Amino acid sequence: VGRYALIVAGGKGERFGGDRPKQFQDLGGTPLLVHTLQAFQDAMEWDELLLVLHPTMMADWERILEEYPLSMVPRTIAGGEERFHSVRNGVREIPEKEGSLVAVHDAVRPLVRPERIRNLMEEAELFGTAVPTVPLKESIRQVEGDGTNEAVDRSHYRVVQTPQCFRSNSLKAAMERPFNSEYTDEATVIEAHGEAIHLSEGDVENIKVTTPLDLRIAEGILKDR
Amino acid sequence: VGRYALIVAGGKGERFGGDRPKQFQDLGGTPLLVHTLQAFQDAMEWDELLLVLHPTMMADWERILEEYPLSMVPRTIAGGEERFHSVRNGVREIPEKEGSLVAVHDAVRPLVRPERIRNLMEEAELFGTAVPTVPLKESIRQVEGDGTNEAVDRSHYRVVQTPQCFRSNSLKAAMERPFNSEYTDEATVIEAHGEAIHLSEGDVENIKVTTPLDLRIAEGILKDR
Repeated sequence: VGRYALIVAGGKGERFGGDRPKQFQDLGGTPLLVHTLQAFQDAMEWDELLLVLHPTMMADWERILEEYPLSMVPRTIAGGEERFHSVRNGVREIPEKEGSLVAVHDAVRPLVRPERIRNLMEEAELFGTAVPTVPLKESIRQVEGDGTNEAVDRSHYRVVQTPQCFRSNSLKAAMERPFNSEYTDEATVIEAHGEAIHLSEGDVENIKVTTPLDLRIAEGILKDR
Repeated sequence: VGRYALIVAGGKGERFGGDRPKQFQDLGGTPLLVHTLQAFQDAMEWDELLLVLHPTMMADWERILEEYPLSMVPRTIAGGEERFHSVRNGVREIPEKEGSLVAVHDAVRPLVRPERIRNLMEEAELFGTAVPTVPLKESIRQVEGDGTNEAVDRSHYRVVQTPQCFRSNSLKAAMERPFNSEYTDEATVIEAHGEAIHLSEGDVENIKVTTPLDLRIAEGILKDR
């Protein structure tokens, strides 16, 4: 059986703050994406690490790899128009094999812990799917199409993170569905394909870095470790 | 007509990190609660600022006031068992008067902007209620009682903040309802009392500081201003 990790950084790499695209921003002296890949290489043995990058980012990535050598160098794959297409490009590279598992992870979640990745893969082996979630910290209200709104019980909701782990054959099949804008993550695609999602424990520190403020928060978390 | 602000810090003041309770933690050289009160005194003219504090916090607060004098010193009121009871103790002190408005605010949201407070009070005057909300940034899944879960469209939800502004007579009446654990904020109580909630624009920087990480984030936001 195979173990695959698919790190998704398919976006055009919008810059914020400094001069580097998001996934290459400096976090405690190391580019964000290098943190992410280090967590994966430390987590367990993989058959292959796959990194989906926007075509325009390939040269930058080559330069980073020279400066920050990784013990397990990922194979790069060109991203597509939407995240969905990027992930599809990636999973198509995974061999069709019964029992193989794949972890799909946002490149801009550099603080994922190796133990958590390993635990999620173990749960995916047991349950077929394993999606990390954390409680919703804030009060929310549901807004109806007519503009009315009402309080909802936040304990009935969980916030979804990555890596999301699946049987790779299931994800490969699900990702051949036509694109739908409701597919905001892989769990949604697998669910649309008819499979139930097993919710696992996430980690509040495993934040998605999409703004300069997020980067500052990530620096704070890293310093506290 | 009257304009009242009710700042709620009714909790026992659990300590985190340092030796001070949450609401008195240092933020850029000034206690958190002083930031909050300064935002309110800068926002507009008030008939009265009311500060609900846990009885054990009163002496600490007196000492802080000596060191950080405020141009508008709030009247302190002893908090109750739950936030609900603290707010009830506070609104009972507001005179019964047609047309008066009240803003209820979490003491541990020190980064609220004066303009936003003013705008919310203006909207409450127009609509009867004004509750600040921001978009939900993360993907969520809804968990059913039987353990199953499904993706929901996050664009149908808004995250609720404070200050929540109401006609004070409405809030006074609503807060005399028997306590119910579903009353997680004042909007919920007003809604249970039969009034529709008007959703207003919030501010992503107006965070609730409840953990050491939140304090670090608040410091980052403050530095960027």
